[in-house]
Amino acid sequence: MDIASVVGLLAAIGLILTAILIAPGSSLMAFIDVPSFLVVCGGAVAACMIAFPLKSMLGMPMSIKVIFLNKAPDYGELIKQIVSLAETARRDGLLALEGRISEIDNPFIITGIQMAVDGTRPDAIEDIMRTEMDAVATRHRDAKAVSDQMGRFAPAYGMIGTLLGLIIMLGNMSDPSSIGSGMAVALLTTLYGAIVSNVFFLPFSEKLGFLNKQELLGMEIAIRGIMAIQSGENPRVIEQKLRTFLPPAVRAKMDAEK
Amino acid sequence: MDIASVVGLLAAIGLILTAILIAPGSSLMAFIDVPSFLVVCGGAVAACMIAFPLKSMLGMPMSIKVIFLNKAPDYGELIKQIVSLAETARRDGLLALEGRISEIDNPFIITGIQMAVDGTRPDAIEDIMRTEMDAVATRHRDAKAVSDQMGRFAPAYGMIGTLLGLIIMLGNMSDPSSIGSGMAVALLTTLYGAIVSNVFFLPFSEKLGFLNKQELLGMEIAIRGIMAIQSGENPRVIEQKLRTFLPPAVRAKMDAEK
Amino acid sequence: MDIASVVGLLAAIGLILTAILIAPGSSLMAFIDVPSFLVVCGGAVAACMIAFPLKSMLGMPMSIKVIFLNKAPDYGELIKQIVSLAETARRDGLLALEGRISEIDNPFIITGIQMAVDGTRPDAIEDIMRTEMDAVATRHRDAKAVSDQMGRFAPAYGMIGTLLGLIIMLGNMSDPSSIGSGMAVALLTTLYGAIVSNVFFLPFSEKLGFLNKQELLGMEIAIRGIMAIQSGENPRVIEQKLRTFLPPAVRAKMDAEK
Amino acid sequence: MDIASVVGLLAAIGLILTAILIAPGSSLMAFIDVPSFLVVCGGAVAACMIAFPLKSMLGMPMSIKVIFLNKAPDYGELIKQIVSLAETARRDGLLALEGRISEIDNPFIITGIQMAVDGTRPDAIEDIMRTEMDAVATRHRDAKAVSDQMGRFAPAYGMIGTLLGLIIMLGNMSDPSSIGSGMAVALLTTLYGAIVSNVFFLPFSEKLGFLNKQELLGMEIAIRGIMAIQSGENPRVIEQKLRTFLPPAVRAKMDAEK
Amino acid sequence: MDIASVVGLLAAIGLILTAILIAPGSSLMAFIDVPSFLVVCGGAVAACMIAFPLKSMLGMPMSIKVIFLNKAPDYGELIKQIVSLAETARRDGLLALEGRISEIDNPFIITGIQMAVDGTRPDAIEDIMRTEMDAVATRHRDAKAVSDQMGRFAPAYGMIGTLLGLIIMLGNMSDPSSIGSGMAVALLTTLYGAIVSNVFFLPFSEKLGFLNKQELLGMEIAIRGIMAIQSGENPRVIEQKLRTFLPPAVRAKMDAEK
Repeated sequence: MDIASVVGLLAAIGLILTAILIAPGSSLMAFIDVPSFLVVCGGAVAACMIAFPLKSMLGMPMSIKVIFLNKAPDYGELIKQIVSLAETARRDGLLALEGRISEIDNPFIITGIQMAVDGTRPDAIEDIMRTEMDAVATRHRDAKAVSDQMGRFAPAYGMIGTLLGLIIMLGNMSDPSSIGSGMAVALLTTLYGAIVSNVFFLPFSEKLGFLNKQELLGMEIAIRGIMAIQSGENPRVIEQKLRTFLPPAVRAKMDAEK
Repeated sequence: MDIASVVGLLAAIGLILTAILIAPGSSLMAFIDVPSFLVVCGGAVAACMIAFPLKSMLGMPMSIKVIFLNKAPDYGELIKQIVSLAETARRDGLLALEGRISEIDNPFIITGIQMAVDGTRPDAIEDIMRTEMDAVATRHRDAKAVSDQMGRFAPAYGMIGTLLGLIIMLGNMSDPSSIGSGMAVALLTTLYGAIVSNVFFLPFSEKLGFLNKQELLGMEIAIRGIMAIQSGENPRVIEQKLRTFLPPAVRAKMDAEK
Repeated sequence: MDIASVVGLLAAIGLILTAILIAPGSSLMAFIDVPSFLVVCGGAVAACMIAFPLKSMLGMPMSIKVIFLNKAPDYGELIKQIVSLAETARRDGLLALEGRISEIDNPFIITGIQMAVDGTRPDAIEDIMRTEMDAVATRHRDAKAVSDQMGRFAPAYGMIGTLLGLIIMLGNMSDPSSIGSGMAVALLTTLYGAIVSNVFFLPFSEKLGFLNKQELLGMEIAIRGIMAIQSGENPRVIEQKLRTFLPPAVRAKMDAEK
Repeated sequence: MDIASVVGLLAAIGLILTAILIAPGSSLMAFIDVPSFLVVCGGAVAACMIAFPLKSMLGMPMSIKVIFLNKAPDYGELIKQIVSLAETARRDGLLALEGRISEIDNPFIITGIQMAVDGTRPDAIEDIMRTEMDAVATRHRDAKAVSDQMGRFAPAYGMIGTLLGLIIMLGNMSDPSSIGSGMAVALLTTLYGAIVSNVFFLPFSEKLGFLNKQELLGMEIAIRGIMAIQSGENPRVIEQKLRTFLPPAVRAKMDAEK
Repeated sequence: MDIASVVGLLAAIGLILTAILIAPGSSLMAFIDVPSFLVVCGGAVAACMIAFPLKSMLGMPMSIKVIFLNKAPDYGELIKQIVSLAETARRDGLLALEGRISEIDNPFIITGIQMAVDGTRPDAIEDIMRTEMDAVATRHRDAKAVSDQMGRFAPAYGMIGTLLGLIIMLGNMSDPSSIGSGMAVALLTTLYGAIVSNVFFLPFSEKLGFLNKQELLGMEIAIRGIMAIQSGENPRVIEQKLRTFLPPAVRAKMDAEK
């Protein structure tokens, strides 16, 4: 579980709720209005349904789950595995890798090793793996785009709701005492739009972009590793090459573990 | 038909209408003002007529039709067809493809196969197909640009309308009781601009961008497939290469169908 | 003449004037204030004079003339001419093109054909033509940049004018009855800024961008055609290659005309 | 001197001053408030001091001087000089250029010619000259970045000042008659921010971008010319190549001067 | 220590404090509200915790320390060291560099020299060093991204806080005398958001971008130098090449020191 995301989301919601509850003369009820909520959230979802294919919209819950349940990849472990495969390949030949495929749980690496074992040409392997990597990046970009647009349409529908409320209020000014409460209700949609955008979808979008880069880095390391294994490079050189992708802290940890 | 787009558009309009109808002291009539509507929509269309050639403006209804009536491409079917053509080419030679052209309904693939049958050089085929693909991308970008600008000019003309209304109202403040209703009318154009932009053209623009990427992906698969057919590659290898363009779910479905 | 641009501009101005004239209690005079106009337009022009070289500013009237007086290029005619030159070159040799230069009215093509006739090396021809194309793109980008900045500075000076007006008004609140009219005058500059930007310069900027792409497409077709003529390609193949740059509708029209 | 920049700056300031002076009930004194000025300008400078190294900040006066005192480069003269050097090199050999270095006043060309005379390899010359060109572009970009950020921070500190003023005013509403003047003072910082940004730094930033492109174009012409001289190209061909960088008007003027 | 950053930050804070203290009828206490502060800062931190991995958030204090404690790199010294290594390599062979590694304190250069001494192939050395450089750029970009988002979320949470305050105030308008102070408190969060963004995180973000470019320039010089040393280039030529990366002022200073 991604503790920081969960704590961040709870903290953001908690801070806003606390601010409402401790303010003198305030009550949570004054901040709850179902029609306002429907205009903002329903409107943003509706706009995204026009803008994206149904499949992308249905993928949103999955994307959100990934934001909170992702596990940080262990690049050090990945490099160790590649180096170990490289040692097998050097000692016993590329075909010997076939017996080790069952140990690997990363399907991207399995595909690459399988192709190397089958004797596929190096440029064909790299081509296929990079196309796969591009396809993953495209799918991630699509998921991020939905979150981005939710973060943009929510405040827009918040503004539409506030304009609706203001126009209704301004057309009923015979009772001046109701102006304040009318205006308060009108502003609720702007508030909802700002919260939906800044507590949920804009941070989600940033995180999806980060998770994408993280996964692509792992794929890049895997591609470089498999290409190096196939060309029969020295496992020590492979390790050194792949380690340059890691931040110094992780490298130091890897050295300490040895 | 693209159900999600239709449902999204109806939902967005329905939510706004419902919000108006259920609000106490509100009436739909208070939200209808023809001159305000003309300033916003007419203004945005006029600005786009200055900004774009007439042909692009006349293409808008077609683009909007595509948004609601597009059919999701069946990439799996496309790959199957290419693999089947590759099998024919491998078994009976490239010339045998001529007899199969009548089965194909995608004019882009027909052009490519025809050139391969005619013995056009591979780099010339790729050059012509990529130029065609670029031209399609350019036309799509133009259509998207019109929608983008409609989505930007509509709120701008909404603001112009509101400023007009405010200045008229501020010049006639002798009757304070009319201030509220004058202000309400003035805000209508801002509301119209926000709706035209966020319910229609900004989501349309996103969708046109998505449909463009979708069509270009199909063309990319076709180009890669035809180049591979011409170079006499193994149909199994072609299938594996082209499948990397598909999301894992589609691939799993393809495997299940076998 | 570019009918759409003229109609668009007249429509945008007409809509705003009509909205002013039909509004009850409104008069056109209330919307005319020469000092406000000078702050907005003079300010935007002054800012652009700081930002751009005098030559770019003096080129603005020319750019605006092009927006309204441009003629859509006939790419079909262009391709026909190139194919006809290719036929001459194939039949009678490259030198025979010299006799046909007088028929051509496009100076860019003349330069290219002349170099081909002179026996300039293909890569030198392409290099010179592409540099020329880049230079045209740069000049267009500069013209577009002036229009862009006019469209950005006009609302900024509109805001400066409104702030000036508000501060003067707030310093003279002894007579409350004048607040409304003071505020109305203050808002005029914001209105002017929005009109100057959204009726004139932002649409102009978009159109200049479009006209640039249009001209560059013609130049690209010319370069590809001349390179193909020089390398002695088959005129049919040249036609097929160049036609891929055209939208399907134009191609169908070309076929129908045959 | 860059007349347009000076006239533009004086015109922008003059228009704003005139608008203040001719407005009824207005006085220049109402627009002068030293603490407000310090918050906006001091704040923007302070933010830029955090954001940029001291050296970049100290370079600002120099950048501003260049904006007003730059001289338009004479590309025609530059090309003439290169062609003349090419003639010498063709007639008397590359070494003969050594005797002409003293005539050149452009240090960038001197470096290039010196290297050619010294027999440095062409790719090394191009490499060194392009690195120098990149370094110039980077330094210009840094100068432009300071101006950009001044143009962004000034309105931000204007808003901070206005918020400070509003909060102070709202906390002292016991005397309603002072609300107007309190608000007027509060708005002054927003006005200052808008002026500092739109009269000074945003136009400056645009101009610095333009001057950068202008200088880089001269360097590009110089690099191309020196590479062509070293490879012993025909001076006429060099002239034709380099002239493609110039706008048609400049070329026509060069022809007329011959 | 980076004096400019420290002075800039103190000046920005000092200007705002002074503006508060010297305003008539103002007191610092009116600007302090802990719940408002928590909504803005807590909210921005919470949003960033959702958006970024915990590691990036924990790296923030380190990034801020670097902003204030960084030391300007001495590129001249760096080039001198590389030239001196090149002289050793030319005189005594690449292996002689091993004895000089202990003098070097830049780990990036040590890695490169070590690989050169070990006889690693030049393209492998460049590949490893560039990957390392990309990894450093990525880590810097991540740090900058956190600062960017803090600078964006702070005003957003400021607006959320102000909307909360306005809605509470509008719901309690029975006592008109409290409107002013209610509004003042509501505006505090907008003020805090603007200060957190424009005094702290937006300038920090700019500076982090600058420091990144500075470090990468040093790494670029090191890579070019080591590649040149390994290929046995003349130390004078290496010096000339590397100096093109420096601004003219630094070069003049280097010459003066000789």
